[in-house]
Amino acid sequence: MQRLKVQIAYDGTLFSGFQVQVNARTVQEEIEKSLMKIHQQAIRIYASGRTDSGVHAKAQVIHFDSPLDLTETNWKRALQTTLPNDISIGKVEKVSRDFHARKDARDKTYRYFIRYSKDYDVFSRNHEWHIRYPLDIEEMKKAAAQIQGTHDFTSFSASKTNVKGDKTRTIHNVDLLESDEHVVVEVTGDGFLTHMVRIIVGTLVDIGSKRKNLQCIQEAFETNDRRVLGQTAPPQGLFLWKVNY
Amino acid sequence: MQRLKVQIAYDGTLFSGFQVQVNARTVQEEIEKSLMKIHQQAIRIYASGRTDSGVHAKAQVIHFDSPLDLTETNWKRALQTTLPNDISIGKVEKVSRDFHARKDARDKTYRYFIRYSKDYDVFSRNHEWHIRYPLDIEEMKKAAAQIQGTHDFTSFSASKTNVKGDKTRTIHNVDLLESDEHVVVEVTGDGFLTHMVRIIVGTLVDIGSKRKNLQCIQEAFETNDRRVLGQTAPPQGLFLWKVNY
Repeated sequence: MQRLKVQIAYDGTLFSGFQVQVNARTVQEEIEKSLMKIHQQAIRIYASGRTDSGVHAKAQVIHFDSPLDLTETNWKRALQTTLPNDISIGKVEKVSRDFHARKDARDKTYRYFIRYSKDYDVFSRNHEWHIRYPLDIEEMKKAAAQIQGTHDFTSFSASKTNVKGDKTRTIHNVDLLESDEHVVVEVTGDGFLTHMVRIIVGTLVDIGSKRKNLQCIQEAFETNDRRVLGQTAPPQGLFLWKVNY
Repeated sequence: MQRLKVQIAYDGTLFSGFQVQVNARTVQEEIEKSLMKIHQQAIRIYASGRTDSGVHAKAQVIHFDSPLDLTETNWKRALQTTLPNDISIGKVEKVSRDFHARKDARDKTYRYFIRYSKDYDVFSRNHEWHIRYPLDIEEMKKAAAQIQGTHDFTSFSASKTNVKGDKTRTIHNVDLLESDEHVVVEVTGDGFLTHMVRIIVGTLVDIGSKRKNLQCIQEAFETNDRRVLGQTAPPQGLFLWKVNY
């Protein structure tokens, strides 16, 4: 048996998220169907983590074990030709049997794409959050700085979260990258709770549009109360950008 | 009655082209449904021309007549809120009753987006033509120059074309705009036959990849034979970019 580590990109628009579920099209299901065609037997995959319905990945990482002996180039080709066209295969590597896509992930980077403009753009509707009001980017940067560091992020997670136990995480960076009507929020951290990036971004936007003030972040850390923070940003602006091992 | 001239953009991915047809979702049908909601009566629209299934528009132009007395801003809002999210409304203008979106169009500009790269990009699959082989852009520019001018474009149209009569058209410009792995072919002309831009682009690509040689263009004008030209480029790279009056 050979363990393979595979980078994948997917357009989340037509997926009900990553993880297999009944009566819904998911990324995991499509990849396992592709592996079934290649192996004529069921092969289970393990990802660095899930993504929600409508969320994209530029470089998600999965691993699986295979009895087949293919070169990395042939693995890439075999997977790409059996997958639907909204999933693509990046780097394929043969790794040791103790590598684990989720457990060995040191940190992850997400990018969230926002466009603030009066005009609707029909071509980017599935890949960014379109906001019609202006944003105070400087105020958002101050808020971003307060989120960085090691905190109990209970208030930054969906109430329906299935993460149990300690909710302390370390966020290394929350950076805002601007270019005319666009702003990209890049978040890197050692772990993320359910909807955590989308709540961070929604709160930054609410601070940038004066619906919330800067103090809400400190208050959230002190009270663990989801309600003091801003909205949950919609899924289509979010990309799992990179997983570091 | 007031005649309205309206710029619209649409993502052609989920449309079976512009023109109404039975059992297919079309742009015309969606706009006429929107106008039906606004008027509570059927309103017919007229476009500068059709676009094929999967082809996009950045600025298609339509006109229609309405008994309603709305400001241009309110027209824009009324249309946008009743349309699906893959059609968007640009400029709305009140025009005289003798304006006609098709008959008055002086010329049109199309842009065709090509990416040549070994790697597949899942996020642009519906909005460009991905080519895995390198292209000789200089050779393509020479071919582009030969297409410009006034010619009988019979060989540059689909055999199933429903354009009758004279097939002489004037192409003002065929320009290639390059940026690293991308090339955009911009074509401006006074009229276009069925698939004409896609046959121009497919032929340029076949010349750029040495499957066809430069001489095929002159031969096509002399023989009116579709078969001497290159492939028909796929629809998803094509955008109706601008209609000039």
